Amino acid sequence: MTPAVPAALFADRLRRAGEVAADQDVELLLITPGTDLRYLIGAVGASHERLTCLVLPAAGHRAPPALVVPKLEAPGLAHLPLAELGVEIVTWTDGEDPHLLVSDLAGGPTTVAVADEMPAVHAFGVRDTIPEATFGLAGPVLRELRMRKDAAEVAELRAAGAAIDRVHARMGEFLKAGRTEAQVGADIAAAIVEEGHTEAAFVIVGSGPNGASPHHELSDRVIGTGELVVIDIGGPLPSGYNSDCTRMYAIGEPDTAVLDAYAVLQGAQQRSVDSVRPGVTAEQVDAAAREPIAAAGLGERFIHRTGHGIGLDVHEEPYIVGGNSRTLEPGMAFSIEPGVYLAGRWGARIEDIVVVTADGCERLNNNTHDLVIL
Amino acid sequence: MTPAVPAALFADRLRRAGEVAADQDVELLLITPGTDLRYLIGAVGASHERLTCLVLPAAGHRAPPALVVPKLEAPGLAHLPLAELGVEIVTWTDGEDPHLLVSDLAGGPTTVAVADEMPAVHAFGVRDTIPEATFGLAGPVLRELRMRKDAAEVAELRAAGAAIDRVHARMGEFLKAGRTEAQVGADIAAAIVEEGHTEAAFVIVGSGPNGASPHHELSDRVIGTGELVVIDIGGPLPSGYNSDCTRMYAIGEPDTAVLDAYAVLQGAQQRSVDSVRPGVTAEQVDAAAREPIAAAGLGERFIHRTGHGIGLDVHEEPYIVGGNSRTLEPGMAFSIEPGVYLAGRWGARIEDIVVVTADGCERLNNNTHDLVIL
Repeated sequence: MTPAVPAALFADRLRRAGEVAADQDVELLLITPGTDLRYLIGAVGASHERLTCLVLPAAGHRAPPALVVPKLEAPGLAHLPLAELGVEIVTWTDGEDPHLLVSDLAGGPTTVAVADEMPAVHAFGVRDTIPEATFGLAGPVLRELRMRKDAAEVAELRAAGAAIDRVHARMGEFLKAGRTEAQVGADIAAAIVEEGHTEAAFVIVGSGPNGASPHHELSDRVIGTGELVVIDIGGPLPSGYNSDCTRMYAIGEPDTAVLDAYAVLQGAQQRSVDSVRPGVTAEQVDAAAREPIAAAGLGERFIHRTGHGIGLDVHEEPYIVGGNSRTLEPGMAFSIEPGVYLAGRWGARIEDIVVVTADGCERLNNNTHDLVIL
Repeated sequence: MTPAVPAALFADRLRRAGEVAADQDVELLLITPGTDLRYLIGAVGASHERLTCLVLPAAGHRAPPALVVPKLEAPGLAHLPLAELGVEIVTWTDGEDPHLLVSDLAGGPTTVAVADEMPAVHAFGVRDTIPEATFGLAGPVLRELRMRKDAAEVAELRAAGAAIDRVHARMGEFLKAGRTEAQVGADIAAAIVEEGHTEAAFVIVGSGPNGASPHHELSDRVIGTGELVVIDIGGPLPSGYNSDCTRMYAIGEPDTAVLDAYAVLQGAQQRSVDSVRPGVTAEQVDAAAREPIAAAGLGERFIHRTGHGIGLDVHEEPYIVGGNSRTLEPGMAFSIEPGVYLAGRWGARIEDIVVVTADGCERLNNNTHDLVIL
């Protein structure tokens, strides 16, 4: 079901992860199930109470890499090219302490970096078996790889963007006055799957005052005539790469004050997209959205960062936020999604995914940015 | 959508968590989103990169408890009885370091225990802002509460058991020779929701040789006549309490050797259920299942623990495993699921959830334990 990533690509990622780790004075990476492990060896799934962990030495350190895995999970990993990648499988049985296996493989005190997603029960479990080691996060290593998408990854994000655009294009089928947010959301969730996603990872239908809560999802509120509705939706393709797109809808013509604010927001979003090119910093892209909103007196109403990176995670590096001086490079993919939120009244947000190109960016969501009046 | 838990019950759980923490010489609990947070204050959802964290002092330590939350998530928590519980809300905005807010609330070096599920990015993030503190896991505190279900929790687990029994009772509609595991699994997943779960959390259809991989899920393998099929399914009710039940099916009569092994397994599962009562240890219940399987020469084929606790998590304490000398008490709920696995040929497992009563146990899955021949 999962599109095949060539084993040679995983081999390259493992090698580069080891090199970046060495550059960052990390001696050993410990990667539990999650998107980092999927990126490195293709293993799909989340962490649970039984430890699975890739033990990946930095370049120049103890080799080979090993995958510690519960004995009963081992058959489920038979499809991974572990032999081809030179990754040894080390199994353990219920009743054993798998953290001791990891510390044996670590081979003594060292500088360890664990996956950002690793549950504390495992991070501290391993730490307690190597008390002399220093423990930090592998995020700063992995992000140097994952933040820069190759052509195949960009193609997946482009396909995800087209898939979610098809869902937004069908919004008139779902979104009608007199229906509840939950009813509309159920139809949208089905459409997200119909259009090629494996699941609807998130479905926000924020009608009227609910739109003023940026992460509101669904409720039994009946959508009324004259209301603004925030629709922020997305999910993964079979490859694991995600879509995420927000468009704004109105049930009938809203009043002039709303339209004026919307025009400010739309201009700000476009200005931020226009600012994206190699060499610009993440915080400059954030400022490009924030300045016109502040100039219109709505600065206090824009209560979140402008965007987030996207790939195997819906939210990953680079974050488009004040204080992030990271310089953009070709292949970086992220959302640009300024919003304004008037508590108790309404909210609005416009969101595209963009990918940095050699001289600007490619927008992966291409439906109209105008307020869609249904 | 979520059944209301009375605020007084959350207040009691917060108080008891603080007391158990103090008993264990923990001064401060840090609980991020997940089942621990749902248990303590009713907040539903998983952790993500923006920190949400309950800062809960142990009994006798700095008060009051506080919930650190991203400003844009705060409206989504308005339904929680935080004011009634005396939990202060502390919001933060993108660009701030929320780990510093937690360390401010901690008030200096202390003995901290973090939720087992807390992602390392947050566990180490907080650790780095209080370098003099000692960090451990909150699991040993929370399990003392969560392991002992009250009557309302048992009622939810009973309802979950009845719901998944209804799905198994419909298996003849779905499971037929000539269909793929994935086709059968899709029908089962829909039935799991139809029968009252909010989602199909897991659907294992292990046909023929795939049954020998205990955590095999679904594949495009076509199910053939004469094959054994492991069906291990479950999910949460709206309350968050989970079902988990395995039954065995055969497409036509299997051969005598399979039936003989099945009879051993069925006897072992019943023997283990019969062994459950207050005062018995978890490892004794494990041994009760393991002994007859070993006596039949199949000990090496039973490659996992006998069971796991169940509640808001599908897998939680108490684990029914060799080495766990935990004494069973009324209200403890767990699976009893011995299995035998013959690589390349077939596998079989029988699983019930049981709850310890005053003088034995109540079985929450009540369909036949015989091999069901379709």
